[in-house]
Amino acid sequence: MKKGRLEAFSDGVIAILITILVLELKVPRGDDWSALRPLLPVFLTYVLSFAFLGIYWNNHHHLLHAAERINGKILWANLHLLFWLSLIPFTTGWMGENHVAALPTATYGVVLLLSASAYLVLQTAIVAEQGPASKLSAAMGRDLKGKVSAGSYLAAIPLAFVSSWIAIGLYVFVALLWLVPDRRIESGLE
Amino acid sequence: MKKGRLEAFSDGVIAILITILVLELKVPRGDDWSALRPLLPVFLTYVLSFAFLGIYWNNHHHLLHAAERINGKILWANLHLLFWLSLIPFTTGWMGENHVAALPTATYGVVLLLSASAYLVLQTAIVAEQGPASKLSAAMGRDLKGKVSAGSYLAAIPLAFVSSWIAIGLYVFVALLWLVPDRRIESGLE
Amino acid sequence: MKKGRLEAFSDGVIAILITILVLELKVPRGDDWSALRPLLPVFLTYVLSFAFLGIYWNNHHHLLHAAERINGKILWANLHLLFWLSLIPFTTGWMGENHVAALPTATYGVVLLLSASAYLVLQTAIVAEQGPASKLSAAMGRDLKGKVSAGSYLAAIPLAFVSSWIAIGLYVFVALLWLVPDRRIESGLE
Amino acid sequence: MKKGRLEAFSDGVIAILITILVLELKVPRGDDWSALRPLLPVFLTYVLSFAFLGIYWNNHHHLLHAAERINGKILWANLHLLFWLSLIPFTTGWMGENHVAALPTATYGVVLLLSASAYLVLQTAIVAEQGPASKLSAAMGRDLKGKVSAGSYLAAIPLAFVSSWIAIGLYVFVALLWLVPDRRIESGLE
Repeated sequence: MKKGRLEAFSDGVIAILITILVLELKVPRGDDWSALRPLLPVFLTYVLSFAFLGIYWNNHHHLLHAAERINGKILWANLHLLFWLSLIPFTTGWMGENHVAALPTATYGVVLLLSASAYLVLQTAIVAEQGPASKLSAAMGRDLKGKVSAGSYLAAIPLAFVSSWIAIGLYVFVALLWLVPDRRIESGLE
Repeated sequence: MKKGRLEAFSDGVIAILITILVLELKVPRGDDWSALRPLLPVFLTYVLSFAFLGIYWNNHHHLLHAAERINGKILWANLHLLFWLSLIPFTTGWMGENHVAALPTATYGVVLLLSASAYLVLQTAIVAEQGPASKLSAAMGRDLKGKVSAGSYLAAIPLAFVSSWIAIGLYVFVALLWLVPDRRIESGLE
Repeated sequence: MKKGRLEAFSDGVIAILITILVLELKVPRGDDWSALRPLLPVFLTYVLSFAFLGIYWNNHHHLLHAAERINGKILWANLHLLFWLSLIPFTTGWMGENHVAALPTATYGVVLLLSASAYLVLQTAIVAEQGPASKLSAAMGRDLKGKVSAGSYLAAIPLAFVSSWIAIGLYVFVALLWLVPDRRIESGLE
Repeated sequence: MKKGRLEAFSDGVIAILITILVLELKVPRGDDWSALRPLLPVFLTYVLSFAFLGIYWNNHHHLLHAAERINGKILWANLHLLFWLSLIPFTTGWMGENHVAALPTATYGVVLLLSASAYLVLQTAIVAEQGPASKLSAAMGRDLKGKVSAGSYLAAIPLAFVSSWIAIGLYVFVALLWLVPDRRIESGLE
């Protein structure tokens, strides 16, 4: 039962964040194509952030599903994750409205990196509570996918000042890594 | 249990979208009838979109209720549906504030068409998981109502450039098709 | 299980409406008492609408708790109630920002009256589904409290054009009628 | 089951409040460091309020988990708590945008004090319903942590007019009191 409420609260927060994102898509003044065009970068960053929040919800779902016991430390680790995820709409808006300028694009990477770290902390706390012999501990494996993601964010942050498009490319690569359900890639990485 | 969280997350997102819609109804400056009048087209598009989101929630409810098993593909198909539904408040606002101009009205139809397609993908993924002998597979039947809806959207998109009111008429027709609980129509179509 | 999702969706929508209300309380520019003063009427209408949405959630909770079976008609009656409730933040903002001018105050009463009617429709649909011999049917009684509320709204709408304060007084009276847990009043009315 | 819906509604409201907070972080115009700097006080007050709402959710979770029975009085005491919590985003925004000026900082303390009082009322109503011999009644103990918190708020409100930073220091102290999981402090206080 305890677990149920942790899931419900996280579902609520992620559901709201994913819909707050769309508030950045402000209704344009005109009614023709030219009114829609300046929205294109905002729309593309919206799609990217929707995918990231969707991936987090999906992974959170699987992680909690495998967990059997919850403690106070896990509650706080979960709130810590939600804190960093809550900054995604803000950085998405900043990046999109400035046509992926260097600093906003790097800041987006910082928030993604801190979210990934917070997820790792949550995962570690949950695995510790279930014990080393649990199914979850075995399922985690070497977590290569997580390491490749963190490495990509770390590279993207300074590279955003060379070219925003390299950073964006790395973010899209990480999103695809988690989205594409290719069994061979998944097996190779995990 | 897995199903429970998918339902809770979808409920959360649709509940937020349906209430974000109302944020487009901006509090007018004046305090007399003339202040309220420019809100009329925004209000009418609000009613239409509220009905569409209500219909999606209702159908989603019935679809998931009939499902017994869930898999990773279904989770993503569901997020894909929620993505297109999340664009409904934006296109509603654009259409309402421009007094149903041609392009916004056609864009609204595009989002409805993509939402309907996403729903079909989700339905197919769920039916596939339950197996061809399942109750759900039988209940789907020929899905005539879904085909009439998709055809209406397809017709409305180009027709919006002839007259917005034809397109609006087709959207209202589809909404009524799902709202009116006339048993004969339902039997005839399904 | 069906009932669970209807409750969850309604909880979601009412929770969002109650918090969207607070968005009308816009952060003032200055940092002294004079900055806070123009917010007073907005704040008072916020308290009133918070109470009304709280009362609806509370009554909805009791009504659904007593219900055992749900059908398609009840799903739509519930969405219909949520539609009218969704207009409360808009009319609250309009009334508060215009210092309870006549037309906004009357409009607020219209939305309250239509919400009350929608609640009655939902209640009737639920009682019909449970059957005339059900506990719920007996518990409804003569529903004097509901009738007094509807009568007060009906009186308040034209009276708002005489004096807004009479209308406001009637709204506060109805809110207190449901809030005050005086057993004698409750027994007398029900 | 009754308890489940109370928890779900509270989860919904707190989840929305915690994400409405982030709406105060408005996307800045520029794309360099100077654009980000004026956001710093708003960001720091965001972190503080996120922590407070997280603490309330956490404590609410534990309190309701220990409760076995619910009554009408508890439903209203819970709505009363949610009312005061709903004012946290507004006062956070006012304090952050005015660079912790005296009156907004004191107002923030008033809302925290009234939230703490409302929590105490809810706790008392729940303990009363469970009976004096219940586990919950024993677990409450002398509630030293709650008393230290209330005393700190009471001191911070007038002290904000001497120096905002003393008041802020007291708010941070209370947040840390609940966040830091030092067993000795917890034992000493409870």
